[in-house]
Amino acid sequence: MTEHRIALIPGDGIGAEVLPPATAVLDRVGRRHGIRFRYDEFDWSCERYLREGAMMPADGLDRIRHHDAILLGAVGWPGVPDHVSLWGLLIPIRRQFDQYVNLRPIAVLPGVPSPVRAAEPGLEFVVVRENVEGEYSEVGGRFRRGFPDELAVQEAVFTRPGVTRILDYAFSLAATRRGVLTSATKSNGIVHTMPFWDELVEEAGERHPEVSWHQEHIDALVAKIVLDPARFDVIVGSNLFGDILSDLAAAVAGSIGVAPAANLNPEREFPSMFEPVHGSAPDIAGRGVANPLGAIWSAAMMVDHLGHPEASAEVRSAMADVLGNTAVRTPDLGGTATTESFTRELLDRL
Amino acid sequence: MTEHRIALIPGDGIGAEVLPPATAVLDRVGRRHGIRFRYDEFDWSCERYLREGAMMPADGLDRIRHHDAILLGAVGWPGVPDHVSLWGLLIPIRRQFDQYVNLRPIAVLPGVPSPVRAAEPGLEFVVVRENVEGEYSEVGGRFRRGFPDELAVQEAVFTRPGVTRILDYAFSLAATRRGVLTSATKSNGIVHTMPFWDELVEEAGERHPEVSWHQEHIDALVAKIVLDPARFDVIVGSNLFGDILSDLAAAVAGSIGVAPAANLNPEREFPSMFEPVHGSAPDIAGRGVANPLGAIWSAAMMVDHLGHPEASAEVRSAMADVLGNTAVRTPDLGGTATTESFTRELLDRL
Ligand SMILES: CC(C)[C@H](C(=O)O)[C@@H](O)C(=O)O
Ligand SMILES: CC(C)[C@H](C(=O)O)[C@@H](O)C(=O)O
Repeated sequence: MTEHRIALIPGDGIGAEVLPPATAVLDRVGRRHGIRFRYDEFDWSCERYLREGAMMPADGLDRIRHHDAILLGAVGWPGVPDHVSLWGLLIPIRRQFDQYVNLRPIAVLPGVPSPVRAAEPGLEFVVVRENVEGEYSEVGGRFRRGFPDELAVQEAVFTRPGVTRILDYAFSLAATRRGVLTSATKSNGIVHTMPFWDELVEEAGERHPEVSWHQEHIDALVAKIVLDPARFDVIVGSNLFGDILSDLAAAVAGSIGVAPAANLNPEREFPSMFEPVHGSAPDIAGRGVANPLGAIWSAAMMVDHLGHPEASAEVRSAMADVLGNTAVRTPDLGGTATTESFTRELLDRL
Repeated sequence: MTEHRIALIPGDGIGAEVLPPATAVLDRVGRRHGIRFRYDEFDWSCERYLREGAMMPADGLDRIRHHDAILLGAVGWPGVPDHVSLWGLLIPIRRQFDQYVNLRPIAVLPGVPSPVRAAEPGLEFVVVRENVEGEYSEVGGRFRRGFPDELAVQEAVFTRPGVTRILDYAFSLAATRRGVLTSATKSNGIVHTMPFWDELVEEAGERHPEVSWHQEHIDALVAKIVLDPARFDVIVGSNLFGDILSDLAAAVAGSIGVAPAANLNPEREFPSMFEPVHGSAPDIAGRGVANPLGAIWSAAMMVDHLGHPEASAEVRSAMADVLGNTAVRTPDLGGTATTESFTRELLDRL
């Protein structure tokens, strides 16, 4: 019996509604594979912020540092500014645990319609996003606040080690798949950091001769993802570009509500974090109709990361089974199932 | 007889093939409206760079400073790095002539298929892009080049006057249309400049109470443009976000090859520049099959900017007429017409 200690952070809104389905799936698949998951739950959230003035306790990170993985629901709630909630919980976890890979697979799932004509069932690719540096930095500030000549500056910081490791991750991943990689750039417009990124891609390409790579400017790339999504397999991008590309790709696949994300520390010095891409969805929170697939797919990625690829694959095929062979789905996918009835249907197929 | 002096910069590749159709259209519509266009042509291009070491002469900007407008074909050619060609020609014109508005309309044109299911004929909206500051700055650089701890920094610079004027332009434009405006932001991830942008949007909203506005994070926004493009009318974004959004929007409309852009100095202290969004297209250059619609639509925007809205509207309805009522179109739109035969068909309808 393998045992894994999982830190659960339901967070806000539907975050709390989609984690129980995910743990139910984990328990079920764990039983079949001799894996035991032990959960510790943390109430870190906007509610906690409003009550106690902080999204998490001062020693929050220490409390989850020795868990094997973190499963997060959603962060954010009306009334708490985004930068407070996110920079108070989500982003510190990504950074302090050096989760420098944000892995975001997308797929056109059976029975889930895509808004894009060229996105056919079976289409799938993955966005590898740099997750701890780049355009998201705290360097910069405001000058002459409130005066007519006020200005704000934001420094994007790209380091050789930081870019190299995300590229090596992406190239290695591409080598295990179709052997093709697309690098998102903007070196024709952004003068300092993007030409540097391109040079490091060139160097990484030399280290990975088995992968054929090319680069695309981000503006052309978003257009091509809409026009011809099937040409992509692994796309690597900076923190900001990866963020934009992964939401776009999920929308193109019709899977914005079911898309998962893994925030990985590949060296396993720190726990990795798994979270659905969707947010806390205040409009439907509390009604029991949230789609649990984003959380369940994220949990499947966690199972894979913890060393159980077969168990992970079983979860993903149960997902495809329900969507492809039944009409059971939550309202966001055009059905009438509740979170609970959908989950029951899925568990039956595991 | 009104006379306008136009600086023509064909630039590279198909740039030289699409400007003659545009001037033919200008001459025809000018004749009907008592407008005379006088052209001065400049050979500034990658070819010139390879021959003489510079994209344009040292006093290039002075030579076109007193023209009424600039019509540009395309810039860029294999063998000349993008940052050389663009920062040697396109970007200096935008900046030195303070063309701080980049206006990019998109439309689903009759008979032009869209890759997105929800994009129906008649759909049209406009992206207003800040064009001279923001993420495209020369501030920043490289540190410890070639060493293991090398890094590159790129400063995004947002000023109160720079952001305020683009927002006021966008809000005023929205007021003449459906009265709704979407601001692209990323204030949940980008700490200094985007919250500043949001504050200035709030202030601009107070100055323009007739416009109802909302903001969207860039990642959610790209997804919504694919899922439900009809909800947008005017979208305003920073230099980088506007660049990404306008290419995406053109792709969603199916009009990436025909999309126009106006680089405006609204105060008319300097000439404005009009250019198709497409590039120099080395793959088809020299074959006489380039689609001239991007250049023609850009010329129509120029005519409007020069004070002749009716003449401009005639060009746009001739475009719709050919596309909607004939099968004449260039290969990129699935037809067999050459640049010349397509242009002849269009001229016949003016
Ligand atoms: C070529 C490049 C510098 C340019 C830009 O990003 O401004 C282009 O993409 C555009 O949109 O006009
Ligand atoms: C909420 C926000 C800070 C976050 C990001 O941009 O990283 C989100 O969009 C995501 O992609 O996880």
